[in-house]
Amino acid sequence: MSDRTLLVLTAHPGDFVWRCSGAIALAVSRGERVVIGCLSYGERGESASLWRKGFDLDQVKAQRRAEAEQAAAVLGAEIRFYDAGDYPLQETPELRQQLIALYRELQPSVVLTHAAQDPYNDDHAVAHAIALRARVFAQAAGVQAPGEVIGAPPVFCFEPHQPEQCGFLPNVLLDITPVWDRKLEAMRILAAQAHLVTYYTELGHRRGTQAARNSGPNLGLPTEVFAEAYQRIYPQVTQELT
Amino acid sequence: MSDRTLLVLTAHPGDFVWRCSGAIALAVSRGERVVIGCLSYGERGESASLWRKGFDLDQVKAQRRAEAEQAAAVLGAEIRFYDAGDYPLQETPELRQQLIALYRELQPSVVLTHAAQDPYNDDHAVAHAIALRARVFAQAAGVQAPGEVIGAPPVFCFEPHQPEQCGFLPNVLLDITPVWDRKLEAMRILAAQAHLVTYYTELGHRRGTQAARNSGPNLGLPTEVFAEAYQRIYPQVTQELT
Amino acid sequence: MSDRTLLVLTAHPGDFVWRCSGAIALAVSRGERVVIGCLSYGERGESASLWRKGFDLDQVKAQRRAEAEQAAAVLGAEIRFYDAGDYPLQETPELRQQLIALYRELQPSVVLTHAAQDPYNDDHAVAHAIALRARVFAQAAGVQAPGEVIGAPPVFCFEPHQPEQCGFLPNVLLDITPVWDRKLEAMRILAAQAHLVTYYTELGHRRGTQAARNSGPNLGLPTEVFAEAYQRIYPQVTQELT
Amino acid sequence: MSDRTLLVLTAHPGDFVWRCSGAIALAVSRGERVVIGCLSYGERGESASLWRKGFDLDQVKAQRRAEAEQAAAVLGAEIRFYDAGDYPLQETPELRQQLIALYRELQPSVVLTHAAQDPYNDDHAVAHAIALRARVFAQAAGVQAPGEVIGAPPVFCFEPHQPEQCGFLPNVLLDITPVWDRKLEAMRILAAQAHLVTYYTELGHRRGTQAARNSGPNLGLPTEVFAEAYQRIYPQVTQELT
Amino acid sequence: MSDRTLLVLTAHPGDFVWRCSGAIALAVSRGERVVIGCLSYGERGESASLWRKGFDLDQVKAQRRAEAEQAAAVLGAEIRFYDAGDYPLQETPELRQQLIALYRELQPSVVLTHAAQDPYNDDHAVAHAIALRARVFAQAAGVQAPGEVIGAPPVFCFEPHQPEQCGFLPNVLLDITPVWDRKLEAMRILAAQAHLVTYYTELGHRRGTQAARNSGPNLGLPTEVFAEAYQRIYPQVTQELT
Amino acid sequence: MSDRTLLVLTAHPGDFVWRCSGAIALAVSRGERVVIGCLSYGERGESASLWRKGFDLDQVKAQRRAEAEQAAAVLGAEIRFYDAGDYPLQETPELRQQLIALYRELQPSVVLTHAAQDPYNDDHAVAHAIALRARVFAQAAGVQAPGEVIGAPPVFCFEPHQPEQCGFLPNVLLDITPVWDRKLEAMRILAAQAHLVTYYTELGHRRGTQAARNSGPNLGLPTEVFAEAYQRIYPQVTQELT
Repeated sequence: MSDRTLLVLTAHPGDFVWRCSGAIALAVSRGERVVIGCLSYGERGESASLWRKGFDLDQVKAQRRAEAEQAAAVLGAEIRFYDAGDYPLQETPELRQQLIALYRELQPSVVLTHAAQDPYNDDHAVAHAIALRARVFAQAAGVQAPGEVIGAPPVFCFEPHQPEQCGFLPNVLLDITPVWDRKLEAMRILAAQAHLVTYYTELGHRRGTQAARNSGPNLGLPTEVFAEAYQRIYPQVTQELT
Repeated sequence: MSDRTLLVLTAHPGDFVWRCSGAIALAVSRGERVVIGCLSYGERGESASLWRKGFDLDQVKAQRRAEAEQAAAVLGAEIRFYDAGDYPLQETPELRQQLIALYRELQPSVVLTHAAQDPYNDDHAVAHAIALRARVFAQAAGVQAPGEVIGAPPVFCFEPHQPEQCGFLPNVLLDITPVWDRKLEAMRILAAQAHLVTYYTELGHRRGTQAARNSGPNLGLPTEVFAEAYQRIYPQVTQELT
Repeated sequence: MSDRTLLVLTAHPGDFVWRCSGAIALAVSRGERVVIGCLSYGERGESASLWRKGFDLDQVKAQRRAEAEQAAAVLGAEIRFYDAGDYPLQETPELRQQLIALYRELQPSVVLTHAAQDPYNDDHAVAHAIALRARVFAQAAGVQAPGEVIGAPPVFCFEPHQPEQCGFLPNVLLDITPVWDRKLEAMRILAAQAHLVTYYTELGHRRGTQAARNSGPNLGLPTEVFAEAYQRIYPQVTQELT
Repeated sequence: MSDRTLLVLTAHPGDFVWRCSGAIALAVSRGERVVIGCLSYGERGESASLWRKGFDLDQVKAQRRAEAEQAAAVLGAEIRFYDAGDYPLQETPELRQQLIALYRELQPSVVLTHAAQDPYNDDHAVAHAIALRARVFAQAAGVQAPGEVIGAPPVFCFEPHQPEQCGFLPNVLLDITPVWDRKLEAMRILAAQAHLVTYYTELGHRRGTQAARNSGPNLGLPTEVFAEAYQRIYPQVTQELT
Repeated sequence: MSDRTLLVLTAHPGDFVWRCSGAIALAVSRGERVVIGCLSYGERGESASLWRKGFDLDQVKAQRRAEAEQAAAVLGAEIRFYDAGDYPLQETPELRQQLIALYRELQPSVVLTHAAQDPYNDDHAVAHAIALRARVFAQAAGVQAPGEVIGAPPVFCFEPHQPEQCGFLPNVLLDITPVWDRKLEAMRILAAQAHLVTYYTELGHRRGTQAARNSGPNLGLPTEVFAEAYQRIYPQVTQELT
Repeated sequence: MSDRTLLVLTAHPGDFVWRCSGAIALAVSRGERVVIGCLSYGERGESASLWRKGFDLDQVKAQRRAEAEQAAAVLGAEIRFYDAGDYPLQETPELRQQLIALYRELQPSVVLTHAAQDPYNDDHAVAHAIALRARVFAQAAGVQAPGEVIGAPPVFCFEPHQPEQCGFLPNVLLDITPVWDRKLEAMRILAAQAHLVTYYTELGHRRGTQAARNSGPNLGLPTEVFAEAYQRIYPQVTQELT
C-alpha cells in the first residue's frame, strides 16, 4: 500500500471524469489514496439538460452529486463536495479555510486542478486560483487551521475543452492505456452527455498518438495508446533527467 | 552497468563544464555512458585570454581541446570534437552528416544542448538548431547514414549565462548535490576563467535553494543542495505524475 | 431591415465614441440594431475637466450622460446606463444580473468590448471581464434570468489608447471609410476633449493605411481610407477563408 | 465560375491532404481554381515505409508523386512539384525565383501554408518562411520575374501535427462538413498511412465540435460537423465584423 | 538636497530589504526622500519561525514591525505600516483610499513594487495590482482624496524569489556597488533568516556580473559589482538613448 | 564636443529617415558623431516608383544613394553604403567582416537597428540579426579584424511600419520635439513617397502624445510633442532609476 495521496480540485463534478480520471485510476491502481474536492455541483453552468427537464435547484444538485459519487466509486476515489456555487464560483473565507484544512489533512503528494485561464468558463480559472492559493496558505505556519503544514506538492493542470484558447501548453503526456477501461466506464455514468464520451475518447486517442511520437527509445508504448495531457506549473525537481 | 547513453551537444568546449557537468557526473555515477560532442573549439569567441597571450589559431585550439579532454576525463565522459568553427558556428552538410551518424551510433536515451536563443552568443542558438535537426533526421529511414534510425529521446536545454534574456524558462531542477565535488573539480580545470567558478558555484547554490522550495514533501532534499536548471523541449511522456 | 444586433459594452461613455463608433455606424448603415451599454458614467476617472470647473458628482454624471446620449443619437444607436461606478468599476451581483438579462433580451449577433488588459486604466480590464462572464452566464439554462439563453456571439475588443502596452494585437482591421463622417461628428460632441479628435483621426488614418497594405487584391480600398482595429477573442467560424 | 485562386504551398506531398484538403475541396466546390505547390517529394523524411520496402530514391519520389497527383485529382486541384529536396528542405535562388513566378502567374486570392515553427519537422518551418518571403518579393516591382506584381493575399497556416508544441493558435475554424467525403477519399489514397486517416478524422470531428461551440447564433451548424483549424498571419481586412 | 521622492510599496516587511534596499540606499545617498509603505506585517505568511517560537499574533506583528523599522533606519528611509493583513492580502476601500492619499501627499518621482505575478505568493501579485491602481486613481481629479493629483511616475518591479517562474524579465540592472554595505547591514537585521543573506548576496553578485557584461564602453563598472534587477512597467520617456 | 558615437545599421536607405532620424538629429545636436550604415540600396524592394519610371538597376541604386546622402547631410550624419543587395538581403562573410571592422573603427556608444521580426519585409529581420551578430563578434579578441575590440553598447530597435504585427513592444519613447523640423526636412527629401511624410508625422505625434502620458511629474513635456518609439534589447545598466 502506497503512502501517497493524490488531491484533485475541480470546479464542477464532470471535470474530474472528463479531464483526469485516467490519472486517478492509475494512482488507485498503484495503491494510492485519491481524494476529489468538487467546489460546486455545476448546478447552473453545466446542467442544462436537467433544467430543461424541469428539475429544481435541489434536484439538480442531488442528481449531479449522485452521478459524481458513482463515477468516483468506479474509479476507486473518495469525493467531497463544497457546494460553493457556480456561475460564478467565488472564493469565500469559509471555502478557503476548508481547503487549507483539506490540504493539511491529506498532505497530498500531487495536486491536479484546472488550467489558469478559460475564456469559455471562468469558474475553471477561479478554481485554479483557489487551489493554488490554498496550497500556499497551507504551507504557512502562521495560518491557523487544523493539521500540520504541508510541503510543496507538484501541481498539474488537466486539459481544458479548447486547450489553445486557454493558453494550455501540455508538457506532460500521461499514458493511461492500462486504465482506459476505467475511464470509459466513469465517463459513461455521465449519461446525459453521451456525445462527450466520443469527444474525450477521441482526445484520449489523440494524446496517446502524440505520446508515442514523443517517447524515448526505451518506453515501448503499445500501438494503441491513450493518454491525458497535463501542464506542470512548478519546475520538476528530480535526480535524473528522463 | 546501465545501457543508457547521454549525449551532450555544445557549441564550445566550456559549455558542458559550466552548464551541465552535474548532469554528466550524475549519469556516470549511475553507470551510464556519456558522450560530449563539441561542435567547435570556441577558438575565436571564448578564448580571449589565450589570444592576448599571443597564441596562434592552432595553439588556441590545442589548448581548448586539452582542457576539455581533461575536464571530460574528470567527469568520466567521452568527448569528440567536430572543429566546425565558431563566431560564427555554421551548419555544413558535412557536420550534419557527422551528427546524424553520431545519433545513430549512440542511440542516446537523453540529449542535452543549448537553449533556442542567446542574444549574447548566436553560436549557442545555432548549436541548438543543429542538434535538434540532426536528431529528427536521424529518426528518418530515408536519410542515408550509418546505423539504425533512432527513437525520440527527450531533449533538455541547459541554462544560458543570462537566462531571462534568452527566453529560458527552467522547468526541471536537477539535484546535483551528490556529484557537486565532481563539477567543482571540472570547473577548476578551466583555470583561465577563475571568476566563473565563483559565478557558477553561486548559481548552483541558487538553483539548489529553488529546488528545495519546489520539492514535494517526500523528496527530502538536504539543506545544502546544488542544482542545475533545464528546460525540457518536448512533452514528458510518463506513466506517473510526480 | 437586418435582424442582427450589435451589443457594445464599455466602462465609460467616451469609449464607444473614440474606439468603435465606426463599427457602430457601419452596422446602423446596414440596418442593424445597435445597443450600447455604459457600465459607468466615467464620472471620476475621465471627467477631470468637469471637476475642475466645480461640478458636483450628480452634475458630472448628468453631463457625461447627456453627451453620450447625443453621440449615440448621431450614430443611430440606443444607449443604456448602468451607473455601476468607476475608479474602480466593480462587478456586483446586481450588475451581473442586469447584463445577463441584457444579453438575453438582445440576443446579440456580435459583441464589442475592451481589451483584456490596460495598465493605464484598470476599469477597462474589469469591463472586459464582466462582459465576457455575463455572456457565458447568459448561455446557461441553469442561470435564472428573463429571456432565452443566447448562442455564442463573437467578441471583438476595440483598441486601447496605448495598444502595445495593453498586449493588444489587432487581428481585424475594419474599413470605416464610408461612415467616417459619422464618427467625426460623434467625436466632436465630446467637446471637452478636442485634442482627442485629432488623436483618433490620426489613428483612424493610420489603421486605414495598414488596412490597405494588408488587403487582398480584390478588396480595392480607396487611397484615403480610415479603419478601426479589433482583436477577435474566440476563433472565427466560417465556411470560406478570405 | 469564380475568378478566385487558392494557392497551397507545402513542404511534402502528404501535407495538403491531411491538413487542408477540406479548404481545397470547398474552394473547388465554389468554382475556384486551386493550385498546390509541393516543394519536395518528402522522399527522405516522410516515406519510411517505402524505404523499408527497398525502393530507391527515384522510386520513392515517383510513388509519392503519383499518390499526390491522385489525391489532387480527387479534390479537383492542380498540382506542381518543385523537387527541392527534404530533410533538409532549403531555399535556393532557383526555388525562390520559381515561386515568385508562381505567385505572379496565379495572382492568388488566398494562400495556405505551414505554421511558422515545428520542432518535429524543421522542413515545415522552412516552407513557411519560403512561402512568405516569395509572396513579399512577388509584390515588388523591382524584383525581376515574369508576370505582374501581386497584391497582398491573406495567408492562413494549416494545423501541424502537434499544434501546441508548434505555437499554433487556431483563430479560424473552417466548416468543411459539406466536403468531408472528399477529404476522406483523398486521405484514403495515402494508403501506407492508414492510421493517419483515423487520426485526422478524429481531429476533423474535434475541430468541428469546437466550431459549433464558437458559432454565433445565426450560423446554424449541424450537429455532426467537421472542421479544419487555421491561423491567420496578417490582420483580416473587412467591412463587417462577423 | 534633492526634491525627488522614492515610494516603495510592498506586501510584507522583508520585501524592501531583500529586493530593493540597494535602490533605497542609492536614493538616500543622493539626498532623496524615501518612503516605504508596508501593506501588511507578513504575520502569517512570512513569519514561520516566530510562530514556531510560540509568539501570538500581536507579538508576531510587533516583532516584524520592529525589525522593519530598524532596517529602514539603517537605510535612511521612512516607513509606514497599513496592517491590511496577509495570506491573503486584500484590497479594501479603506486601504485604497489610504494609498491614494499617500501618493498625493508624496508626489513620488519613482515607484517600486512587486512583479505582476508570483505563483509562490499571491500577496505579491495583489500588492502589485493595488499599487498600480492607487497610482492611477491618484492621477484623477474626480477621485476624492486629500492633496493634489499626481503625474505619471515610472514604476519598477523588483525581483521576485524565482524570477523565471513569475514571468519577470529584468530590463534594468541597477548598479548598487556604492551602497552594498548598507544593503548588507539591513539584511543582517532580519536575523531569523540568515540563510537569505547568503542567497541575496549571491544574487547581488550575479546581477552585478550581468550588469558588467551589459555595460556600454563608457560606464566603467569595477570588477566586483553588485546590482539589483528591475522590470520597468511603462515605457521610459527620455531625451537621450543611453 | 562629445566623444560619443551613434551607429545606425539599416537594411535600406529610407529606414533611417522614417524610423530614427529624430534620434540621429538629437545626437548631432549634442555634438555626437553619427554614422549610418546602409546594408543595401533598397533597389528591388523599396523602389517601385523608380522601376515604374523605367530606371535600370544602376540608376535605381544611384538615385537611392543620392537621396540618402542628401538626407544624411540634412541630419548632420555620415553615411556608408555596403551594397549587399536586397530582396533578399543576405549575410556574406565579406559583409560580416566589413561590419566588424566598422564596429571596431567607431567604438559606438549606442547602436540603432531594425526589430527582430517583420512579416512584411524579411530584410529587416535579416539586418537585425546581422547587426547583432557583428556587434558580438567585434567584442571578441579572437576575431581577426582591424581595430580594438569593443565594449557592450546598448542596442535599440526602431519602430517597424506595423509594430504589433512585428512583435515590437516600445519600451522607450524618445522626445524628439527639439529636432522635429530636422526630421521633417529629411523626410521631405524622399519625395517619391510623399504620403509617408504624413504617415510618419502622424506617428510622431501619436508617440509624442503617449510620451506625455507616460512622463514622470518632473519632465515637463510641452503640449505639442513628437516622439520616436524604441525597443531596448539588452537590459539597461544604470546607477539611478528614472
